[in-house]
Amino acid sequence: MVPHLTTALSGPLLDLEKHILDAMPRIEHWFRKQWQDHAAPFYTSVDLRNSGFKLAPVDTNLFPGGFNNLNPDFLPLCVQAAQSAVEKICPVAQRFLLIPESHTRNTFYLQNVATLQYILRQAGLEVRIGTLLPEITEPTALALPNGGSLTLEPLRRVNNRLVLDGFDPCAVLLNNDLSAGIPEPLQGIKQFVVPPLHAGWATRRKSTHFGAYDGVAADFAKLVDIDPWLINPYFSSCGEINFQERQGEDCLAGHVDELLADIRKKYAEYGIDQDPFVIVKADAGTYGMGIMTVKDASEVRALNRKQRNKMAVIKEGQPVTDVIIQEGVYTFESINEAVAEPVVYMIDHFVVGGFYRVHTGRGTNENLNAPGMHFVPLAFETCCTMPDRKAMPDALPNRFYTYGVVARLAMLAAAVELEQTDPRNA
Amino acid sequence: MVPHLTTALSGPLLDLEKHILDAMPRIEHWFRKQWQDHAAPFYTSVDLRNSGFKLAPVDTNLFPGGFNNLNPDFLPLCVQAAQSAVEKICPVAQRFLLIPESHTRNTFYLQNVATLQYILRQAGLEVRIGTLLPEITEPTALALPNGGSLTLEPLRRVNNRLVLDGFDPCAVLLNNDLSAGIPEPLQGIKQFVVPPLHAGWATRRKSTHFGAYDGVAADFAKLVDIDPWLINPYFSSCGEINFQERQGEDCLAGHVDELLADIRKKYAEYGIDQDPFVIVKADAGTYGMGIMTVKDASEVRALNRKQRNKMAVIKEGQPVTDVIIQEGVYTFESINEAVAEPVVYMIDHFVVGGFYRVHTGRGTNENLNAPGMHFVPLAFETCCTMPDRKAMPDALPNRFYTYGVVARLAMLAAAVELEQTDPRNA
Repeated sequence: MVPHLTTALSGPLLDLEKHILDAMPRIEHWFRKQWQDHAAPFYTSVDLRNSGFKLAPVDTNLFPGGFNNLNPDFLPLCVQAAQSAVEKICPVAQRFLLIPESHTRNTFYLQNVATLQYILRQAGLEVRIGTLLPEITEPTALALPNGGSLTLEPLRRVNNRLVLDGFDPCAVLLNNDLSAGIPEPLQGIKQFVVPPLHAGWATRRKSTHFGAYDGVAADFAKLVDIDPWLINPYFSSCGEINFQERQGEDCLAGHVDELLADIRKKYAEYGIDQDPFVIVKADAGTYGMGIMTVKDASEVRALNRKQRNKMAVIKEGQPVTDVIIQEGVYTFESINEAVAEPVVYMIDHFVVGGFYRVHTGRGTNENLNAPGMHFVPLAFETCCTMPDRKAMPDALPNRFYTYGVVARLAMLAAAVELEQTDPRNA
Repeated sequence: MVPHLTTALSGPLLDLEKHILDAMPRIEHWFRKQWQDHAAPFYTSVDLRNSGFKLAPVDTNLFPGGFNNLNPDFLPLCVQAAQSAVEKICPVAQRFLLIPESHTRNTFYLQNVATLQYILRQAGLEVRIGTLLPEITEPTALALPNGGSLTLEPLRRVNNRLVLDGFDPCAVLLNNDLSAGIPEPLQGIKQFVVPPLHAGWATRRKSTHFGAYDGVAADFAKLVDIDPWLINPYFSSCGEINFQERQGEDCLAGHVDELLADIRKKYAEYGIDQDPFVIVKADAGTYGMGIMTVKDASEVRALNRKQRNKMAVIKEGQPVTDVIIQEGVYTFESINEAVAEPVVYMIDHFVVGGFYRVHTGRGTNENLNAPGMHFVPLAFETCCTMPDRKAMPDALPNRFYTYGVVARLAMLAAAVELEQTDPRNA
């Protein structure tokens, strides 16, 4: 079962896929060079949107959940890539402490943590789970949807090291995006922390990421001779916003206007008969909170109280003061009339799999990763590294290869972003 | 369909498998350290023998054929590992020239070359096949058993570079074991050659390899607390042999006697009720030529004319002057009454798959890789990196994991061997 791309593949995207397939050796050669100059994150997931005329990353997650949604046939790829990641980042490590998000009721998330633990164990590491939750005071087994269980253990800090009872780990692997800032137990610890603390949303900004992506996309577009807009959404950002106090509204409305005009121009150039839209979202944050779809600048002035409140805070109650305004990319992939959005997973710089978020209750111009959203995951049937040159550019293995290429561009942008924001480089 | 291990798994091997499974994190950690100190060969295949009481490598091939025999489900693992190998060994390379063996009539071998080409292309390289055969004077398509075809092109040497028409490769990948010495077109070329020329049988010696393996097996045995003999066959070697002139017979008979006595002692220690035997084979060479099974020293003195001639020359008519005498390891794996011998494949230091050589016409103490042998390949059903801790130590994924560990030990020995024999280190 594979999502159907509604828009006939005759326009710019088919051309893009053809360009990417034809340039495959050049692309892989280019990536090899990039990974010599930039260190890939330990793991990354990238949300893509495929509008049939444009294929672009809209979110790059450095603490990916959802490993449980990948095709189990390709877990060996995850294991092999994890071995490679450990070799590069912390070869001496034998014991990993995995620190997950602190929500214990989301059993799907717990299944993700269990899958990550399994992958890392198969890669040959001892892996135990330490939780930041103060209420966990002894090892606690939580039931998983698949029938197994996951044991969370209380973290202890001893001599600037995080330990568990009888377990002194060499490295700490975060699967917690640090939305609420760097938790006290993690501050100033002497162990190796991956991803680094500055990859957390306490410091990360979407606008910095997409700024880095601008450069990556421009270089790549030159390499394969395409218009970078085909893989890169326009964006701008506003600071000093206060949705509840209606502060910063002019900045926001102005940028929305500008972006819509820019998109309209591009749509005209490519003969695209769709309404342009933009997405306004918190510059720091995740989990699809604080996000809105806007088709006209007047909408940002006409927000009601409820809408303002919804935009004003994100995960862990963090107030929103900076927003990114990003060109919206339609999702024109659907399956049984439900909208489908691909998510691509990488460990080290290897694409290890992906799945579709399939959602019946959302529109083609809405975010599919929102709180309370019960999307149905649909694992990619084939892997993303086996294009079939004898098939059409939009044949499944070729579409997935293209997804893997664009996702890697976003990952490369994240690598550049993490260099720029590394406090040691300040 | 999986070969059945005839000997009940209750003795030393079950113990070995248990030790290896239990020590998995320590083993993987140890391997990571080894690969920081030693460069893994580009690709390697290792023939193993499993006697139920002993599991050991008997041949380590640095120019492996047989990639076509691997389970196609795991080709993505090969592709990912090939990307890693290229990154480490020649990251700037974009065009690979693959030089195969010069036998064009063995269509199974040609299928192997086609599979290798496919893997490297999926890894993002441009790969063309240049042949050393003088009769190929223009691009020649050869039909493959699977219906496809493979194009061989004539090599040309231009300014100390090997090129094809319209193709100037950055690197040369050898799938030719150089049994007849280093072919003239390859001498002194300025391109990057993998594996290095000194990995060819013109310089390689089995006794050097197994000497390096002695050290590796001893270190590993200490790590997991086992008797190294369980994974390491005894061996010795004789030089200045001339089978046709009956020269060196005393050396040979003496070593055979000694080895048989040593093995007998070990068999008694472990209560093994089998006849010890040794394998006498050419110290430099491959393809199962110049090999005999010996159960008593008198046999080497009683060789008839035909047997002498058979031992005296190997592939490409090379005369045999040095032999290795190696403890024979029974193959007690069988399927439908046919003997089965596992072969494990690695690219970079990753285990990417394996298959069984299944042969009806051979005994449990005979070499299964001999000229004219039409073994049936039986691909491993699962991959070698997904042990199942909840299953018995001899469950299939666990047996394959153990195979992968022992094969990697042989590969590590090859890495050490190549350092020792590198002319740049002389």
